[in-house]
Amino acid sequence: MMPARDMEDVTVGLVGLGTVGTGVARLLTENADRIARRAGKRVRWKWVAVRDPKKVRDVALDGIRMTTDPAEIIRDPEVSILVETMGGIDQAAEVVLAALDAGKHVVTANKAMLAERGREIFDRARKAHRAVAFEASVGGGIPIIQAIGVSLAANQVQSLAAILNGTCNYILTKMTLEGLSYARALQQAQELGYAEADPTLDVDGTDTAHKLVVLAQLAFGANVVTRDIARRGIDRLDLADLTYAGELGYAVKLLAVARLSDDGLDLRVAPTLVRKGTPMAEVRGPYNAVRVVGDAVGDVFFQGRGAGMMATASAVVGDLIDVVTGRALITSRVLDPWGDADRPIARTPSNKLRRRYYLRFIIADRPGVIAALTQVLGAHGISIASVIQHDTDDAPDGSPVPLVIMTHMAVESEVEAALEEIDRLDVAHAPSVLLAVED
Amino acid sequence: MMPARDMEDVTVGLVGLGTVGTGVARLLTENADRIARRAGKRVRWKWVAVRDPKKVRDVALDGIRMTTDPAEIIRDPEVSILVETMGGIDQAAEVVLAALDAGKHVVTANKAMLAERGREIFDRARKAHRAVAFEASVGGGIPIIQAIGVSLAANQVQSLAAILNGTCNYILTKMTLEGLSYARALQQAQELGYAEADPTLDVDGTDTAHKLVVLAQLAFGANVVTRDIARRGIDRLDLADLTYAGELGYAVKLLAVARLSDDGLDLRVAPTLVRKGTPMAEVRGPYNAVRVVGDAVGDVFFQGRGAGMMATASAVVGDLIDVVTGRALITSRVLDPWGDADRPIARTPSNKLRRRYYLRFIIADRPGVIAALTQVLGAHGISIASVIQHDTDDAPDGSPVPLVIMTHMAVESEVEAALEEIDRLDVAHAPSVLLAVED
Repeated sequence: MMPARDMEDVTVGLVGLGTVGTGVARLLTENADRIARRAGKRVRWKWVAVRDPKKVRDVALDGIRMTTDPAEIIRDPEVSILVETMGGIDQAAEVVLAALDAGKHVVTANKAMLAERGREIFDRARKAHRAVAFEASVGGGIPIIQAIGVSLAANQVQSLAAILNGTCNYILTKMTLEGLSYARALQQAQELGYAEADPTLDVDGTDTAHKLVVLAQLAFGANVVTRDIARRGIDRLDLADLTYAGELGYAVKLLAVARLSDDGLDLRVAPTLVRKGTPMAEVRGPYNAVRVVGDAVGDVFFQGRGAGMMATASAVVGDLIDVVTGRALITSRVLDPWGDADRPIARTPSNKLRRRYYLRFIIADRPGVIAALTQVLGAHGISIASVIQHDTDDAPDGSPVPLVIMTHMAVESEVEAALEEIDRLDVAHAPSVLLAVED
Repeated sequence: MMPARDMEDVTVGLVGLGTVGTGVARLLTENADRIARRAGKRVRWKWVAVRDPKKVRDVALDGIRMTTDPAEIIRDPEVSILVETMGGIDQAAEVVLAALDAGKHVVTANKAMLAERGREIFDRARKAHRAVAFEASVGGGIPIIQAIGVSLAANQVQSLAAILNGTCNYILTKMTLEGLSYARALQQAQELGYAEADPTLDVDGTDTAHKLVVLAQLAFGANVVTRDIARRGIDRLDLADLTYAGELGYAVKLLAVARLSDDGLDLRVAPTLVRKGTPMAEVRGPYNAVRVVGDAVGDVFFQGRGAGMMATASAVVGDLIDVVTGRALITSRVLDPWGDADRPIARTPSNKLRRRYYLRFIIADRPGVIAALTQVLGAHGISIASVIQHDTDDAPDGSPVPLVIMTHMAVESEVEAALEEIDRLDVAHAPSVLLAVED
């Protein structure tokens, strides 16, 4: 290996100095020699673009030029790589497109931007013969982009299942292990910095859906956009359902699922029952995990820190090294994740989707009610694997009671139709709860 | 993406048509279009070298030239990539070196060859400006080589812990879950094809040590050879110790461990106690797993099929694609895993190694014996965290009884010295058992 000081330079500009940007800045300043050895060139960090130049930063910025205008970095002919850690969608996309037009390679951690404008960005990158590297956009420090895009390239991915939002997994872990309500667990997550002041995009599943778009695009070349994804968050999840699921031997996770079949591609984000004892069910706290099933490799499971300053910065700087060595440009060109897919992949229609379901009803506690419900289920071809109905000694006779049913394999459209019918029965005291089971 | 039929060709020769070679052959013939799309060129499989050309093969070989002499493939100027799946050490190394000399890139699944002759092979690859890709050498389908070498390149790896032999993990799982003896579990593994007729290299830890050499070389550039690794297998493991470990809340795994500290690098392969509920403890059957801790990324955990025809073939063909695209040559050049390390890394001396230990003694069941033992331990600064001594109502008074001790953090050299002293006491009826705990 060449001594780092004799190497040539490559000049980098950083746009955005929030949590991830600060982590990247730290690695670039504190580990410059190591990065040079792994990249084969010295990475010279010249520029940073920030919104507020007066803000006190948690990283040394000696000798770094600061601007509020990313265009100033893009105009600098010395800069050959732009690292985008500003977040947001359209403003970030404009910066990335301008950088590609100016002949810069781009490293980005921005899943929302890729989910919404990935096709345009990769189209531009292809025309400009430049790389767009995006390992940090999904799964924080888990090298899932490289794994699916490069290492498992001999495989047709058959399915993906993933925990992609550390905030949600932290909240679900707290609810499950400590019996906290959703609201209380969210509050604790906010106090610890695992959830933002406005957690909407995390807890309603949008962030997870953005990341699933990126993974699905990579694994299936499916030309997916966020609105293609059936999405439910954890924000209306009732602690009772976590408890009943636990009694049935399952943990509830906010799972992103993609499954390819002869009927098409099924894409969804929803709280989902996962059997205890499987690696996915045991992912706790703010961790992320991805399970990939490939036709040759079988199942491969990855787990790591899904967010946080240094885990995500590790992925950004890993990408930066990949760009500097020239590998990322090859990957962008050959893989072309948002390029024309071999064939358009249709969404699997819901009358072709078969899985097991967890159902919970609140019903009148009087004779014949369970028979009425199960008759509706039976008419839709849904058979019952197990039932939970606890004694309710402490409630007055005739009070509504919960009835939990785990089905055998059932057709999604039939389950939905059955629940609509049941919810119209006068013995049903609340809208029924439906959660899928991922086996 | 270009239609596959308009692409240029790259010609490949395969040496060895055992389990892995057959899997590679299947992927090359059955998935030719997919591989071409991912590689950007059509992979033309021209040659196979086998020991016995008359043997009936489990794969179509129409149009493939067969030879018993790998040199014939190496002499063919059309062949630009040689895939080595023959196994063994010196014969394979000679084939690989000759291929590099002849200007071929090499893809290999051969950990034993890399562990013993990696330095020479990478030296030759550097001089010949050719790639040596070796993802399939460790962890079967788990993309751990790419992860450590490329994706986590921004990190200094601080520690690795891994289950790298599926045969051993299958045997240990059977012993733990079904209470089988080692001999009986091995026999079942052989019946199911998870263990070979002569399982020595698997069960004595040699195979795991070879793989640890490859990982340590990659993560630490440490110039390690197999004999540097303290190695114990599972072949002398007693079911009783798995049972006691279970009572203490631990699973026993054949763990490969590498840990970097200011005192050096600690490398070992041994049956090790892993706390139940952690992902590593829950790895069951013939699976492999690797936990990497990096200074930026924190801990990342990978699990997948560690062996088997198609999982390993997936890694070989992934490497082949990486070579065809040109990425693997960049990686070989920049990473240079067996090149000169930044600094020679000394082995951590055993008087600097601190961990917790599981100890089991067979002692005379009479007053004062435990006091005598614990006095020896105390004199070596070893304090006790927990003790198991069961009632032995069914044994005659005074029969030897097992005494299990879990220590607090203790210095390895002191533990070894204490056990030597204890084994010399006349109350000790059998050599003591010592297992490390990996926290």
